[in-house]
Formats: sequence, structure tokens, C-alpha cells
Amino acid sequence: MTAGVTSPIITTAGEPQGDALGTLLGLLQADMDACGRAIVARMDSPVALIPQLAAHIVAAGGKRLRPLLTLAAARMCGYASGHRHINLAACVEFIHTATLLHDDVVDESRLRRGMASANAVFDNKAPVLVGDFMFTRAFQLMIEDGSLHVLRILCNAAATIAEGEVLQLVTQHDLATTEDRYLDVVRGKTAALFAAAAQVGAVVAQRPVAEEDALATYGLNLGIAFQLVDDALDYAADEAVLGKSVGDDFREGKITLPVLIAYQKGSPEERQFWRRTLEEGQQQDEDLPHAMRLLKRHEAIDTTLGRAANFVREAQEALEIFPQSPLRQALIDVGSYTVNRVH
Amino acid sequence: MTAGVTSPIITTAGEPQGDALGTLLGLLQADMDACGRAIVARMDSPVALIPQLAAHIVAAGGKRLRPLLTLAAARMCGYASGHRHINLAACVEFIHTATLLHDDVVDESRLRRGMASANAVFDNKAPVLVGDFMFTRAFQLMIEDGSLHVLRILCNAAATIAEGEVLQLVTQHDLATTEDRYLDVVRGKTAALFAAAAQVGAVVAQRPVAEEDALATYGLNLGIAFQLVDDALDYAADEAVLGKSVGDDFREGKITLPVLIAYQKGSPEERQFWRRTLEEGQQQDEDLPHAMRLLKRHEAIDTTLGRAANFVREAQEALEIFPQSPLRQALIDVGSYTVNRVH
Repeated sequence: MTAGVTSPIITTAGEPQGDALGTLLGLLQADMDACGRAIVARMDSPVALIPQLAAHIVAAGGKRLRPLLTLAAARMCGYASGHRHINLAACVEFIHTATLLHDDVVDESRLRRGMASANAVFDNKAPVLVGDFMFTRAFQLMIEDGSLHVLRILCNAAATIAEGEVLQLVTQHDLATTEDRYLDVVRGKTAALFAAAAQVGAVVAQRPVAEEDALATYGLNLGIAFQLVDDALDYAADEAVLGKSVGDDFREGKITLPVLIAYQKGSPEERQFWRRTLEEGQQQDEDLPHAMRLLKRHEAIDTTLGRAANFVREAQEALEIFPQSPLRQALIDVGSYTVNRVH
Repeated sequence: MTAGVTSPIITTAGEPQGDALGTLLGLLQADMDACGRAIVARMDSPVALIPQLAAHIVAAGGKRLRPLLTLAAARMCGYASGHRHINLAACVEFIHTATLLHDDVVDESRLRRGMASANAVFDNKAPVLVGDFMFTRAFQLMIEDGSLHVLRILCNAAATIAEGEVLQLVTQHDLATTEDRYLDVVRGKTAALFAAAAQVGAVVAQRPVAEEDALATYGLNLGIAFQLVDDALDYAADEAVLGKSVGDDFREGKITLPVLIAYQKGSPEERQFWRRTLEEGQQQDEDLPHAMRLLKRHEAIDTTLGRAANFVREAQEALEIFPQSPLRQALIDVGSYTVNRVH
């Protein structure tokens, strides 16, 4: 099942959009390989359960979009003199993995990255502690790197992620959540790390603040778009493609942008339906298909994807201060790919 | 019910031991007040649930031994020129609170610091995330402080804590755990932060490495003793005094030093009892009193307290390189207090 979006949401010159991520990965293959090796090396610990659980996460793969952003930003900014970008990209992935591990505990999501989630295999205890360990590993990498500016950027991102996740706890069962407040959640839980990951690339290349800011803006808006598309996919994607079940958010009572849109446009009966299923958590077998029909009726998926496309455009515009290059083009195209992966 | 220890375990000159902590607090009252204010100020967040949950932890109080160590060490080392010790003491308490919050989730302990544990009141989700937030707050405080050396000390401690907690998961239901391996767990989960807290005091006072090392040695050994006494108290203390239930560790199947001692000395039937109750988690009403009788039969509580007294002596000896002062004496006496609080 796919969303009913037929017109191209945004258009860009250059690569075929479906291959944008592949192009970016191709440009950075050696760096990504080095980053992967750094991740494995730094997960090691005399406590065997730590690399075991870490390997479980690493084996699950994932797109490693966040470290890719650090590497791409550093190289686009002309960094060529060392390995700081590799270590900091690994550090970004550690922070992300730590939040995933803690999010698995919190969300009790059954599928994460297409495999059984870490807590389903190892129970709830180990992921909390291994997440803490990975978080401290990330800081150890930054301390080795030695830049207080980098520490400040990534630590502030980590604080914002935690705040965003707590805000999500408060808002996720509340249909009175406004779109703005929902976007605050998304900025926190998803976009802050995208922003920091990209910004750090300019820092290692010792570029001016304007370029740091431009990359942070790119990352922030790309991250928001990424999350909104994820929200849409949860009601629209093919399970095999997405690697997570359709309707996960619905079953967990998570109130995401498509639902907020449908709720705001809904009739009194429809609102009652959303309140029962999401606020009160009273769900029956036929509720998910009905929810999907309501989302379609109010064009909630298309509207969400339209919002995402706007954020992608802002991300792409932020890159205009950089000279044209294959990496800049690849970063622009990844924005388009983010929105179009729904097709 | 108290342990059957009647002889003084260690003797020191100076203050009556029961009042040692009070004396230390009295010497540092202004600093502790300032630290308390810093903690409250830095727990703030626009996400209201964060200060709410934080206030719940702060209200529960606790002895704040760890920040007290930082303040005492800094002042004993002659630090007098600023507020770094206050902010870093607050940072130490944040790291401790974050680990408590995560430990509550992990251990499902019913009582923590004499109040309902955070997860019983707020469910399991918020404590994981608020713990993450407090952890990042701790790092933000260190980054503001600006010393990479301090960052390295406390970040390594945090990594060691996480490793120690994971090691505890692996060993806590295994009666084949050796005493050495158990002490590794204790060094990680408890003593590493005591060591770092004390060491940081020498760093802010810009004292030589030998004094940093001496304070780290003091903190490490005090922390080990503190945990061993805690293990003993779990089978021996008056619930109202300790603020936690007698037998918590037993009911959770935690294998601590008193149990390891009794197991090693036990008959085949006694070993079978420990395996059933702790490894297999099959417990009946009469099992806790029986466990306490076995511990008494093999003098396991006294032996544990004797081990603790040895660590306290090592802690106290480490302070010999410092000139005599009321603060040095108070730190020595706190060691004795740690062991004698069982009476």
C-alpha cells in the first residue's frame, strides 16, 4: 500500500532521485568503510555482553545517514588532512544507536531496522545500560578529538534529543497537540542530531560560522522532513520495504502529523474514533484500516508529505552558499530522495 | 535486626564516628548549599516533566556523598578562587542521579532512598529519558567548565559505571562469580564515580598528579567499602534507618559478597538452597529468614564488613600525603563512619 501521491513533490536537476543515496555513498565509500571500522573497534569492551549487543545493532545495519552527513559535510568543506571526520562520524552514530536502544525500551516497538528490536532479544535491562555505555563512548571519542566546540554542538544535540523524547511522552497521547508543538518534538527527537552531524563537518574543516550554520540548517530541515516521511510511511509503506510494520505508531497510540491533520479536519464521530483508539488505547481489529481510510479522506498523508517537501526545500536552499560540487549536488539530491522514498 | 558485629572494626582518632558525616557537612555547608542551588537551577527545562521528575529525585534527598567528596577534596587542596568545584560537584550528582534513574528501571527496586522509586510513580519510560537528559546536563556543565582533563576523568568514570552495571547483569545470578570478579562489578558500578568525584577536586585546585591519584585512590576504596556495607545492610539493617527493605537484593536474586561467602562455605544442601532461590529465582516466604541464618552461620556479614574495613584503611592511608587539616580529618572519619553505619 502506498500513499496516493502521484505528482513529483519537488524537482531537482542531476541524479535520478532513487539513486541519490547510492551516489552519496559512492562518493564517500572509503570514508564510510573507515567509519564502520571505527564503530566496531570502539564498541569493544572486556564485558562481552556489550560488543555482543552492539554487534546485534550493527548487524541490523541501517542507512547510517547521520555519519554520512558528517563525512559529506567535512569533505564538501574541503577537509582533507586527517581522521577527525571519521571519528566524529562514528561518534554521531554512537549517539544515534544509544538513543535507538533507549527508544526500543521506551516504545516496545517490535521491529526496528527490520530485525527483532534489541529489547525483545535481550530483555529491557541490557539495552538501557549498553545505551549508556555507547553514549559515554561517543563522549570519549569527542574528548579524544579535543575540540570543546564539537563537544558543545553534539552535547547540546544530545540534550535536545532527550528533551524531545520526553516531550513526545507528554504529547503522544494528546490529540490537542498543535502542529507546531509536534514539530518541536520532531526537531528534538530526530532533527537535532541531523543538524549537529552536518555542522560538525564544517567545524573539522575549520570553515567560517556562516558555513557551520548553513550545514546545521540543512541537517535540521532534512531531519524534520525525514521524520515526517517516516510518520507518513507508517500508514502507507510496504512492510518489506520499510522494515517496520505498517501501523506501529497507531498501535502504540502515537499521535503523529498525519493523525493531527485528520483529527483537525474530522467530523465529531471521526474525532471520537481517534480519541478512543489513540488517547484511550481501545483498539479493535478493524480500526487500523478505518484509520487509513480517514487519513486518505482528509489527504493527511499527502499534506504531511507536502510539509516534508517544504522542509527539504529549505534544506536544499541552505546549501546555496557552497560552491557547486558533486558532493553538494549529492546532498541536494538526498533531500529529494528523502521525500520520494514513499513511492 | 542488626549484624552480629560487636567489636569496633576500625579505630580512628578525632570525631565521634557517628557524627563524621555531620562534621564534614558542617565544614562545607555553604558549598553544599550552593551546589544544591546549582542542581535545581540546572534541572530546569521547558519540558515540564523533566523538572517534575527531577524534583521527585531531589526531594528524596539522599546523602549527596559524591558531590561532598568533590567539594571536600577541592577545599582540602586549597581551592579558593571560584565556583568550578560547585558546578563540578553538581555535575557529579547529575551523573549519579542519571545512573539511579536507569538503575530503577533495570532493577525494578521498590524502594529507593526511602521513597517509591521513580519508575513506580512515573512508569518505565520517563526515567530512561530523564536520566539521559541529566547525563547530558552533566556533560554540558563540564563543557562550560572547559577542562578536557575533567571531562576525561568523569567520562571515563561514566563509561566504567555502564560497564560495571552490564557486568552485574551477567554475574548477578551466577553463584560461580568469584570475589575478585564481584569486586570488579563494585569498582564499576559504585567506586568509579567516588574516585572521579574526589580526583576532580584536586584538578580544580591545580594540584600535582600525585595528589590527584591520592584522592582517586581514596574515593575508589571508600566507594568499594560503601558498596560492601550496603550489601551487608541489605541483610542486616533496620528498614526505617536504611530507607530500603531488608532482603531487596535477595528478592531480586542479586548475588552479593555476603552470599558468595556463605555459598563458598556452604554444605551441598545450603548451596542447593542458594541456587534455587537466587539462580533459579524460586522463592518462598521462609527463604529470606533462612538465608539470613545461613549468612550468620558462616559469619558472612562480619567477613564482608571486615573486607570493607580493609578498603577503608586503604582509603585513609591515601590521604597521608596531604598536610593535617580539619577537612583531611573529616574525610578520614567519613571512612570510619561508612563501615560503622551498620551499627
